[in-house]
Amino acid sequence: MAADIFGERRERLKALLRRDGLAALLVSLDANRYYLSGFELHDTQIDESAGYLVIMAADRDLLCTDPRFAEAAARLWDKDCIFIYQSKGLEQINALLRDRVQGNIGFEAAHISLAAFEKLGANLRLVKADGLVESLRMIKSADETDCLEKSCRLNHRLMNWLPEVLTPGRSESDIAWDIEKFFREHGAEEMAFPSIVGVNGNAALPHARPGPDSLVDGCCLLVDTGCRLDGYCSDQTRTFWVGEKADPLFTSDLEMVQEAQGKAIAMLRPGMAAADVYRVARAFLEDRGVADLFTHGLGHGIGLQTHEAPSLGSSSEQILRPGMVITVEPGLYRPGRHGVRWEYMVLVTEDGARTF
Amino acid sequence: MAADIFGERRERLKALLRRDGLAALLVSLDANRYYLSGFELHDTQIDESAGYLVIMAADRDLLCTDPRFAEAAARLWDKDCIFIYQSKGLEQINALLRDRVQGNIGFEAAHISLAAFEKLGANLRLVKADGLVESLRMIKSADETDCLEKSCRLNHRLMNWLPEVLTPGRSESDIAWDIEKFFREHGAEEMAFPSIVGVNGNAALPHARPGPDSLVDGCCLLVDTGCRLDGYCSDQTRTFWVGEKADPLFTSDLEMVQEAQGKAIAMLRPGMAAADVYRVARAFLEDRGVADLFTHGLGHGIGLQTHEAPSLGSSSEQILRPGMVITVEPGLYRPGRHGVRWEYMVLVTEDGARTF
Repeated sequence: MAADIFGERRERLKALLRRDGLAALLVSLDANRYYLSGFELHDTQIDESAGYLVIMAADRDLLCTDPRFAEAAARLWDKDCIFIYQSKGLEQINALLRDRVQGNIGFEAAHISLAAFEKLGANLRLVKADGLVESLRMIKSADETDCLEKSCRLNHRLMNWLPEVLTPGRSESDIAWDIEKFFREHGAEEMAFPSIVGVNGNAALPHARPGPDSLVDGCCLLVDTGCRLDGYCSDQTRTFWVGEKADPLFTSDLEMVQEAQGKAIAMLRPGMAAADVYRVARAFLEDRGVADLFTHGLGHGIGLQTHEAPSLGSSSEQILRPGMVITVEPGLYRPGRHGVRWEYMVLVTEDGARTF
Repeated sequence: MAADIFGERRERLKALLRRDGLAALLVSLDANRYYLSGFELHDTQIDESAGYLVIMAADRDLLCTDPRFAEAAARLWDKDCIFIYQSKGLEQINALLRDRVQGNIGFEAAHISLAAFEKLGANLRLVKADGLVESLRMIKSADETDCLEKSCRLNHRLMNWLPEVLTPGRSESDIAWDIEKFFREHGAEEMAFPSIVGVNGNAALPHARPGPDSLVDGCCLLVDTGCRLDGYCSDQTRTFWVGEKADPLFTSDLEMVQEAQGKAIAMLRPGMAAADVYRVARAFLEDRGVADLFTHGLGHGIGLQTHEAPSLGSSSEQILRPGMVITVEPGLYRPGRHGVRWEYMVLVTEDGARTF
């Protein structure tokens, strides 16, 4: 990614700050910080922030971090604009902001603890400004789209390879570990999220953690997994039948899910309400009399985080725009029997959509 | 772990609530929730809480979660005391607390976002009560000590095996992945934290992420790593010389670090101030004229989290007590040349200490 991409992103953010009457924005969410600076995609070892950005509406932006990151910061940021704090970091940032900023300072209320907020906030005009950076991140550049497609391509390779290891006797957690090894040994930095691997009734639990239950000859297996490659996440779900003759109810559920997904993707275009995409899939499943088995939203945006804006749920207020990358993942769940979900990643284009 | 252990822990917490004039405590930190209930050690996929506990000073305790966890909750908790919330969870918990609790309600300010706090807090007498559960977790039961020792035993096996893969040409990230595979394939649930693997000058960076730098014949390698086994974390550091003849400065730094560690561990006993343990190690390194190369605390408690109370730093106010499990990890860092750290896990016993 070219270095000046970060500056361009900050310029677009500054326009939003001026629109909203903010003199500055304090950025605390790690993915937002990385998006605007290239500095540290993850917060540190275990339980601390790697640092904060202060984006100024009409001044040079500051990168605040502690001595552990001084060297990494110096590689990315103008020396005069790096602020190194010691152990009482938030109190020191408070003093810095009081010194440097006149006016309202936006902050990310969903991504700062109450305790941190109280240390940060004394004698400052802090204003909640959640979602500002996320509104930029929602629309991917061509470079970002390439990264997401590359991450999804590795996910496709995984899904194509996976049937080789789906043999009776192997447990959900065995398979989850096979998946992780495949991703890591084919270039991924890490998993994008812990894989969901569920046999039969476990596949009907929306939050199935891989456990000791094993494949048998003649069973359903749901796999929802993704990796992070060059910073960007992939997320796909497939549902397999292991054995010769699939349960007819499984087959018909799978066909309905795939048809619902196909109808939703065929509708996708800029200007459409995200909630309407959900309604298309839901209406199809209602027609088939199984809508009560479809118990979650239809999908979500994906990028530096696995789950980001926009949401494709019934109450989403977002409008699709070119450059959004979303998942489309209808599912049908029969408690105690099986669960079926099928998930693709899709780019909204100028005149429709393209499935990765 | 026997099921009633959770009830016993809650009884001890209730005594603290009564001492502090709290009618209830809302528990939001995942490790605290698990410690008191056995329910979900980790928050869910990506970005949401798996649930909250409401511990009552003088009533039955509540487990609040969403429908995804209803089945897991029912396996652990009295049905009458499970509260399943829908999408606006915090607003629903607010109503529940207003209905059920008269008096002050403690909460964990360091483990709730400002946005969540505002949804939760309307018309309630909320009082900051950080560290209450942590003060119980700091003293390990015999069962917990066994778990920590078992996790550390696997860490010893890793460290004993590791030299086999430390051959010139292999990169830091290759070695980090070897370590992860070793832990996972020998029973660990996951890494306790991302491994630090640093060659030469990288070992002098307190936050060395494994990268492309490779071992050469004649180099220093610092490895700081740990796994989670049966829920409990291990954390050890070793520093290796790769090649035949070690740099004399490396050897003397390593010997000083090991001697500082030995002196600190030999002092450990109940009743001693944690800060004094730090001072013992520091004084030894001052005597040797290298104290300015020792740039961090001496260690930390470890348990369900890799970093927990007590801290063994210069400003720690904690007194050592039997049942504490701590790391002792002095280090010396020569920027651009090498870093040396040596870390053991140690149990404070009735009359001294025992290294795992």
